[in-house]
Amino acid sequence: MRPARSLPLLVLCVAAAGLAADTPTESLIGFSPVRAAGQRSLEQRFDAALDPAELKEWMRRLSARPHHLGSPYGKDDAEFIAAQFRSWGWDTRIEEFRVLFPTPKIRVMEMVAPTVFRATLAEPMVKEDPTSGQAAEQLPVYNAYSIDGDVTGDVIYVNYGVPRDYEELERRGIDAKGKIVLARYGSSWRGIKPKVAAEHGAVGCLIYSDPRDDGYFEGDVYPRGPYRNDAGAQRGSVADMPLYPGDPLTPGVGAMPDRAKGVDLAQARTLTKIPVMPISYGDALPLLKSLGGPVAPESWRGALPVTYHLGPGPTKVHLELAFDWKLVPAYDVIARLAGSERPDEWVIRGNHHDAWVNGAEDPISGLVALMAEAKSLGALHGSGWTPKRTIVYAAWDGEEPGLLGSTEWAEAHDSELQQKAVAYVNSDSNGRGFFQVQGSHTLEKFINQVARDVTDPETRVSVAQRLRARRIAFGNEDDKEERKDIRDRPDLRIGALGSGSDYTPFLQHLGVASLNIGFGGENGNGIYHSIYDSFAHYTRFNDPTFAYGVALAKVGGRTVLRLAEAEVVPFEFTAFADTLARYVKDVAKLADDMREKTEEDNRLARDNTLELAADPRDRFVAPKAKEAVPFVNFAPLQNALAKVQDSARAFDRARTTRAGEALPADTQKALDEVLMHAEQALTRPEGLPIRPWFRHQVYAPGFYTGYGVKTLPGVREALEQRDWKAAEAQAVIAARTLEGFAVQIDRATALLEKS
Amino acid sequence: MRPARSLPLLVLCVAAAGLAADTPTESLIGFSPVRAAGQRSLEQRFDAALDPAELKEWMRRLSARPHHLGSPYGKDDAEFIAAQFRSWGWDTRIEEFRVLFPTPKIRVMEMVAPTVFRATLAEPMVKEDPTSGQAAEQLPVYNAYSIDGDVTGDVIYVNYGVPRDYEELERRGIDAKGKIVLARYGSSWRGIKPKVAAEHGAVGCLIYSDPRDDGYFEGDVYPRGPYRNDAGAQRGSVADMPLYPGDPLTPGVGAMPDRAKGVDLAQARTLTKIPVMPISYGDALPLLKSLGGPVAPESWRGALPVTYHLGPGPTKVHLELAFDWKLVPAYDVIARLAGSERPDEWVIRGNHHDAWVNGAEDPISGLVALMAEAKSLGALHGSGWTPKRTIVYAAWDGEEPGLLGSTEWAEAHDSELQQKAVAYVNSDSNGRGFFQVQGSHTLEKFINQVARDVTDPETRVSVAQRLRARRIAFGNEDDKEERKDIRDRPDLRIGALGSGSDYTPFLQHLGVASLNIGFGGENGNGIYHSIYDSFAHYTRFNDPTFAYGVALAKVGGRTVLRLAEAEVVPFEFTAFADTLARYVKDVAKLADDMREKTEEDNRLARDNTLELAADPRDRFVAPKAKEAVPFVNFAPLQNALAKVQDSARAFDRARTTRAGEALPADTQKALDEVLMHAEQALTRPEGLPIRPWFRHQVYAPGFYTGYGVKTLPGVREALEQRDWKAAEAQAVIAARTLEGFAVQIDRATALLEKS
Repeated sequence: MRPARSLPLLVLCVAAAGLAADTPTESLIGFSPVRAAGQRSLEQRFDAALDPAELKEWMRRLSARPHHLGSPYGKDDAEFIAAQFRSWGWDTRIEEFRVLFPTPKIRVMEMVAPTVFRATLAEPMVKEDPTSGQAAEQLPVYNAYSIDGDVTGDVIYVNYGVPRDYEELERRGIDAKGKIVLARYGSSWRGIKPKVAAEHGAVGCLIYSDPRDDGYFEGDVYPRGPYRNDAGAQRGSVADMPLYPGDPLTPGVGAMPDRAKGVDLAQARTLTKIPVMPISYGDALPLLKSLGGPVAPESWRGALPVTYHLGPGPTKVHLELAFDWKLVPAYDVIARLAGSERPDEWVIRGNHHDAWVNGAEDPISGLVALMAEAKSLGALHGSGWTPKRTIVYAAWDGEEPGLLGSTEWAEAHDSELQQKAVAYVNSDSNGRGFFQVQGSHTLEKFINQVARDVTDPETRVSVAQRLRARRIAFGNEDDKEERKDIRDRPDLRIGALGSGSDYTPFLQHLGVASLNIGFGGENGNGIYHSIYDSFAHYTRFNDPTFAYGVALAKVGGRTVLRLAEAEVVPFEFTAFADTLARYVKDVAKLADDMREKTEEDNRLARDNTLELAADPRDRFVAPKAKEAVPFVNFAPLQNALAKVQDSARAFDRARTTRAGEALPADTQKALDEVLMHAEQALTRPEGLPIRPWFRHQVYAPGFYTGYGVKTLPGVREALEQRDWKAAEAQAVIAARTLEGFAVQIDRATALLEKS
Repeated sequence: MRPARSLPLLVLCVAAAGLAADTPTESLIGFSPVRAAGQRSLEQRFDAALDPAELKEWMRRLSARPHHLGSPYGKDDAEFIAAQFRSWGWDTRIEEFRVLFPTPKIRVMEMVAPTVFRATLAEPMVKEDPTSGQAAEQLPVYNAYSIDGDVTGDVIYVNYGVPRDYEELERRGIDAKGKIVLARYGSSWRGIKPKVAAEHGAVGCLIYSDPRDDGYFEGDVYPRGPYRNDAGAQRGSVADMPLYPGDPLTPGVGAMPDRAKGVDLAQARTLTKIPVMPISYGDALPLLKSLGGPVAPESWRGALPVTYHLGPGPTKVHLELAFDWKLVPAYDVIARLAGSERPDEWVIRGNHHDAWVNGAEDPISGLVALMAEAKSLGALHGSGWTPKRTIVYAAWDGEEPGLLGSTEWAEAHDSELQQKAVAYVNSDSNGRGFFQVQGSHTLEKFINQVARDVTDPETRVSVAQRLRARRIAFGNEDDKEERKDIRDRPDLRIGALGSGSDYTPFLQHLGVASLNIGFGGENGNGIYHSIYDSFAHYTRFNDPTFAYGVALAKVGGRTVLRLAEAEVVPFEFTAFADTLARYVKDVAKLADDMREKTEEDNRLARDNTLELAADPRDRFVAPKAKEAVPFVNFAPLQNALAKVQDSARAFDRARTTRAGEALPADTQKALDEVLMHAEQALTRPEGLPIRPWFRHQVYAPGFYTGYGVKTLPGVREALEQRDWKAAEAQAVIAARTLEGFAVQIDRATALLEKS
């Protein structure tokens, strides 16, 4: 820390003492006042055992060699983690699955016209980074679950390669059919790019990291700074995870290790339809430099020192990919502390352990915090404490290729989990900066309490207060309502979960209320899924003191401890109802906006405005008139929302009325039973249209965004696909689901009122 | 034109026939119906004489060699233009002034640390462009009216170098004092950059063309495409023109050729305070590459393939500049067709003839249209037609260094012009695309009629209709009110004039109603003020057929012909009142926005939000609390606006009531006398605060924007400077001026009503 900052920080500490996290006085949701004090003192003991030096050493150990799914060191890591858990007193086992995991045999990308250039497709060793030289064990740069292919074609540049980019190309008369598309990383999850490219007839797909989004435009590149250099490339899965995650061959069921060994790729609906490969911006530059055709729209241009053209031609590329389509073992480490009072209520906490290469940040920075929690919980246990509920800690394998370890485990234990799981608390990576949380809004109030009780290492205010400051300072200053909402609302809003980490099978397949937690925002991240995601990089550019590792352990530990120890599981519903009201408003507004935009677009098409405004030297394709957007009946949804709001308020009244007293034990247990299954009432066994694996009716990853969440997905995606009938039908389905949820809340209220 | 476009265009022509410009039926403002028909037939004859081949040949001739102020070929061009005018029957003379025009003796820019690099400061010849090799006659790359200097200092990058950029630097603890600032072209007029840099204590200033704004980011670079290449640099004046334009030694008076020869630079208040030089992005790259310090804010980063840092250090630069501070002759070509009926009412039309180098586009593309007009008017005159009013055509010298020719001429003839000028119609450059017009809103309705009567060469609809289409298609689609205004308002709004061309002395010093006209928007322009602004470039990338040169001549010719021939000069005031209402609303909103922002900023400072949101690894300077913004009394302005609105409506009623008849000759003359001097009623002899040369109270170039207009400048700039008392005083002054303007309108109304 710089000398210049010491004084103001000291002053701040004194000034903000009244707000500091270390003197909490707030009552705890789920606890009677008399128990809350004991809980907080337990948490102080928990905190005292956290040692940043241990986190650092675990990271050094776990990231010392490449440890991807199926690798020797991946197995070694799993065994090391399991041994640690055991040494801390946890009942630990490794659960093994057998999953499809292709690795490359042939990777060729060469420009064959107008000049010849063969891509290096390799990240060179950097001398400041010792593990970057472990070439023999590194997975090469590739996209997992691309199909094999050998294609040659003219290149077109498709920006981020999302549906609206193809609309833009169409307006310029450019067709992807038979082309190899060059897309830049960003805007959507990478797997969307080959999916959309194939839908438009492309025969191959290259995805590169443009320095505008991921390179020197952002900051100094590695090893001078933390950002991606011109040889850095982003590995990653391109399986169609919005259809279903996990092993492509076993959707909905656990990929047990004793299954038949044959691989029937025809069953694997989540493989890409065309070959796809990631490349560095060094390898992309010659392609873009020689590309002709119209100049790309302004917002499509990146930071390479060329004029971005759309093509097609004269750049022509030969892409050849072949993979070893093998099954590999996945090792999930599962550790338990059995609950004393309610052993059949499980609080689950997880973080994956596999990486693309050495993965110091992704995932080890999150995993070491989880390990610190486990060690400290183990020590509490060793000193005589036993949790009321069962605590399960998990280190997942195979998250990177497609949430394999978590999905297969959740699928293998589906009924037990639906019966016993209270909540799932996920982390993945961690870094210096601001608290980040998304999840089930039934846990919003709960996690806000946790965040108010943990102190930010850099500023000594609570991590909640610092997050609020960030949202105000970095938010849209022109959106005054939003800023007022951030300032005036006692709790910080939490984001909804899309996908991208191991909470997905729990939340969206099984209906287990979930949270995803971490810190970040101050660490330049240019090493995502590269060989440079190393101990050397992390300890130089990210969180060298592991202060934020400890902060995450404090958040994770408190979250688990409170979920495990509360007299009644700490769910409440007014925050959910408040957020749901926004979602309902959003879909209604989406329809209105689409209607207005369609009218306007059709008017522009009709009166030739666009043609008159176009430069006749450019090709102009007149836009086709679109079907007018009808008024969609959202009344069922709005009525269901009103019911949820009523039920949430009633439960809250009953809950706060009884907050001062300890409830009778049988009431507590009966309430737990209702509350811990409330999230399941938001799911539907039939799942979402065209993707039954995704059962949650409020949160889902977008079919065309991948990671990005779509709230009320059935309704929203029907609207986006302009299927008005389906939207109306989905509104009814969502309404029925929400009504069921309200009934569930009412059950809990009744228990409170009659006991 | 591409084959693919032929069919849709044909279809369009038929479909739009009812709207085509060639069948005008609208009554003409200033003309009785019976005269309007004759006027239109005169305009048909005018059009028939326009020949694009002649425009092309004149451009080839005039841009064949470098012709800057004081150059041999500049004089040759002036004599050629004068000879042409004479041959077309115009009473022509060359008026000579003697003006300060420094040219470089020494230009050195070298990086002395951390490595040594000497800037080339030269644009190489391009073989596709024959005139680019005329090195002996070319002015080198430099900024005119920079002072001499020999400085060495650490470099800081200041983005566009406007005041808000220095506020941003201050927040990061970076001080310009003693530094050499590196600013990129754009956002403000270039002369603002060294002015603001000097105010912040910098000792030198470099201005480079970043490829983000002016280079490969925009499109292919010369000679492959039209955009600026890595050696291209932008010459230009840095005189403090917002203080006063024209000869720095003779503000307010004509720089007569017989004045004493000595140069007393101490009188020249518009020279820069520090040395300044423009460089190419090729020369800027090594400086930026080695610059350290914090990474620049995202919006500051350009398109060079480096991480943009702010400095200071380790980049250190030595800048040495010395100039030959000489007086040179400026040759204005002034040609007249004397009016038959009202010879003492002058319609003035001008375009400059001097360039920075060969200047095919700037200014010859505009000048050849003006010459075509003059030739056709001369032919009409030769066939017996004589204008009712006197027409004056001017080709100005010395516009580039600081509007020298026009300003000295306007100052030399100030009383005569204030007495006789009806209006001044300017053009400068011209290109393919869309009609562009700014000017006095008293001429808005008039120029809209002209624009409805001229056909766009590419689309065959009127240039007004095409401009409307562009505004709708390229406007902010989220601003629905604006789009509705564009669609529903019968006339297109015209922009207000700031500065940047020869209308300034007429409009803002003398109070002569002015228009600035041209076409453009489809021509990639990367050759501004470089040696590549050539005949070769223009005829390849801009308007090869000179169809838009002819279109400009049609607009310019109609504008002049109607102003010269109208029975009553075609001013009206409702468009002005409508626009003024927006300006009054704007300044009130400015005060409100500043008040709200100040409150919010102070709140953020008080509650430490910004400090909590900052990364402690970055230097953070807590913002100082600002004085709260009081409520300013805009009532005088609002009352004056109401008077102008009333008067405008009353005049309009009177005007339209009498529109069907020819008014008595003496009423016409009396009306002319009042209307042609109305714009003067918007000026004030004392001028604006700290810059008395600028007398107009509604339009002025911004003191800190240079070209960009500030409307109601006295009030607005006082607000921007947070001088609330001055703002209130200026509101009163503006109100008095506007009341005087309303009285002038009432005089015109009275003449209409009593005659």
